[in-house]
Amino acid sequence: MPERLAVGVDVLAEHDAVARANRARFEGAGVLAINLLSSPGSGKTTLLTRLLARLRGRMPLAVIEGDQQTSRDAERIRATGVPAVQIVTGTGCHLEAPSVRDALAHLPPLSGGVLFIENVGNLVCPAAFDLGEGARVVLAALTEGEDKPLKYPHLFRTADLVVLHKSDLAPYLDVDVERLSGHCRALAPSAAVIVASSRTGEGLDAIEGWVLDRRRG
Amino acid sequence: MPERLAVGVDVLAEHDAVARANRARFEGAGVLAINLLSSPGSGKTTLLTRLLARLRGRMPLAVIEGDQQTSRDAERIRATGVPAVQIVTGTGCHLEAPSVRDALAHLPPLSGGVLFIENVGNLVCPAAFDLGEGARVVLAALTEGEDKPLKYPHLFRTADLVVLHKSDLAPYLDVDVERLSGHCRALAPSAAVIVASSRTGEGLDAIEGWVLDRRRG
Repeated sequence: MPERLAVGVDVLAEHDAVARANRARFEGAGVLAINLLSSPGSGKTTLLTRLLARLRGRMPLAVIEGDQQTSRDAERIRATGVPAVQIVTGTGCHLEAPSVRDALAHLPPLSGGVLFIENVGNLVCPAAFDLGEGARVVLAALTEGEDKPLKYPHLFRTADLVVLHKSDLAPYLDVDVERLSGHCRALAPSAAVIVASSRTGEGLDAIEGWVLDRRRG
Repeated sequence: MPERLAVGVDVLAEHDAVARANRARFEGAGVLAINLLSSPGSGKTTLLTRLLARLRGRMPLAVIEGDQQTSRDAERIRATGVPAVQIVTGTGCHLEAPSVRDALAHLPPLSGGVLFIENVGNLVCPAAFDLGEGARVVLAALTEGEDKPLKYPHLFRTADLVVLHKSDLAPYLDVDVERLSGHCRALAPSAAVIVASSRTGEGLDAIEGWVLDRRRG
């Protein structure tokens, strides 16, 4: 994003002001807003549907979906019964705070609940954009190899939780999960690291517990 | 990349002029320059090492590697005996024509050969940046699911070849390869689509043949 510097201070200052306003709004209503980030195809939406099925009926829930094109993800979320708004970014490579603010107008009140914001699949650009979230969850699928944290450190450094996803495929891969976890811990020492599979259910109790703790928190 | 519009016409015009100069230089020397693009972790570097092992000794070869951080990929390429230059983009999300021009100064002459340019792992931003390449190869790992072309159409539309990679994992996935191929063909009707595995060797003959054909022009 070398262009970012050229955008001018005004636009960035405006974005940061909106992010602060979003955060104040979430905190004021006791809403945990989670910014969910990963490469394309790491399984963010699938994991989200599993978590929503576990949390539904226990607290207000909603989802904001970011994608370059299509509203397929929002449709998958709505099929779980949870309200979802899709932001189609066109050529845009990340979500921005003003889009999140505008999307909130299309969602029911969430006092005491959880808002999941699924960012555009991208390990680079979303790292630099504060949406006003209360926590960042970064997914890395085991199929992507061990070196992703090293090659895309900016994003991993900002993680509050790293989910090492698609663990059901581990037997068929050459990936060393311990080494991958170590890379994540080195970049984000205070982040939790959970190995998980949306298929087998491995790690989902731990992720659910992390979300509940963080919401109380 | 909404910022792109704000960068100002001068910078973009300069990039495009450098891309044109790169292309003229490649064409003048009979060099096929291939821009290799995918999500992080789709297996670009691994596929590249397989192709280099097949092509080495038959023509001049070189690789330019783009990554946010680390020179791991260039080291993996050099281990094959092929010269490689790493461009570390820092917070940058894509390669640009001037970096490619500058990297060429560190590589041997390539007359009649092939230059592989492995872009930053990103399905969004690199789509809009012409490096002066003669062909674009887009990788999509089967592990990323069927809908990536639909969700990131801008990049897939520019492909001359789509490689559906990691086919060895197909038995353990729910992906419908025919449907995925169909999405690619709908977006890039003149592109070749090859199902491949760097592990089992499936499709590597076809990719090698495609590169050789393309080099002959």
